[in-house]
Amino acid sequence: MILYGYYRSSASWRVRIAFALKGLSYEQRFRHLRKGEQLEPDYLKINPQGLVPSLVLADGTALTQSLAIIQYLDEIEPDPALVSGSAVERAKIRAASYVVACETHPVQNLKILERVRTLAGEETSVAWARQTISEGLSTFAALVANETGPYAFGEHPSLADICLIPQLANARRFGADTAIGRIPEIERACMQNAAFERTRPELQPDAE
Amino acid sequence: MILYGYYRSSASWRVRIAFALKGLSYEQRFRHLRKGEQLEPDYLKINPQGLVPSLVLADGTALTQSLAIIQYLDEIEPDPALVSGSAVERAKIRAASYVVACETHPVQNLKILERVRTLAGEETSVAWARQTISEGLSTFAALVANETGPYAFGEHPSLADICLIPQLANARRFGADTAIGRIPEIERACMQNAAFERTRPELQPDAE
Repeated sequence: MILYGYYRSSASWRVRIAFALKGLSYEQRFRHLRKGEQLEPDYLKINPQGLVPSLVLADGTALTQSLAIIQYLDEIEPDPALVSGSAVERAKIRAASYVVACETHPVQNLKILERVRTLAGEETSVAWARQTISEGLSTFAALVANETGPYAFGEHPSLADICLIPQLANARRFGADTAIGRIPEIERACMQNAAFERTRPELQPDAE
Repeated sequence: MILYGYYRSSASWRVRIAFALKGLSYEQRFRHLRKGEQLEPDYLKINPQGLVPSLVLADGTALTQSLAIIQYLDEIEPDPALVSGSAVERAKIRAASYVVACETHPVQNLKILERVRTLAGEETSVAWARQTISEGLSTFAALVANETGPYAFGEHPSLADICLIPQLANARRFGADTAIGRIPEIERACMQNAAFERTRPELQPDAE
């Protein structure tokens, strides 16, 4: 399997964590988002949206959308499960994941911040990112407030941790507070786990 | 089960469609978003984010995030399956769903459009919504272009149709084009299915 990504793309990092947790091997290729490499014709054949990540399977099938790719990995290699427990517990893990993956990250990604910058300037785009991320992290913290740790949901990493950790890197880039509720405890647990630590953006071959 | 929603909330409509497809019974309660009823203290206890929909189970457990609620329903009542086929087919259904649920709707919801309006005025906020929805629908159309119909993925409704149809109502509200690729064919199939047709916003008890 070939994963097309970008070291600083938080959606790419999510997929790297999932691969590492599953112990599945893959090849990484990179598309430099700020240089526009994701819009080159060869890549648009893989991902018509010009986004990373994409996962290309052995038969050439291209999968898009980080959460869909992660759920695919969870189906072809169910151990360890990334969404486990009762139906209610699974719904809670997914809800926390979607708070980041639907309501936070897409509202502060590169494309949207460029749109805000064009409308209202650089400073406003940074404030926009900070507000979006602060609201998202506060909601995440509220949803996991009564769960036991050290991870977001219990003793094992889940999809919720996979969504949270890359979002924290974005939070720091824009100066948003991350010390909310259980988030620091969750981050400590994750960063002691090699699947999170070794897949950090700074350690990727395309890091600048 | 009690579903808290708002007739015009497209995330609420998604959940109504899923309930109807599953043939599960539920009670509807409403929170009028433009009147701010979702921010009243009793509702914030159910959904700290002050968003609809929320699903309250018989034991009082509150579930949030429309996709997490729909996947919960899909787990407690697996027939008909909303995400079916091989692991690759399931990944494709999910990717198309997330194009709407992650990258389109959250970037054009009421909260974000109010933020854009404050920054740059009413006209710009409408243009923002139109651009966001057009890009989302174009991507959705590209992802299902080579699938067989009449639904987005084959002969049965899936999570992708559940995400698409409410987004088309938003598209029309903001004057975005919906006649893209297979989308009109998919919409015709869905609107001939009572689960989509009878759950339309206009038919809800709180419609104005």
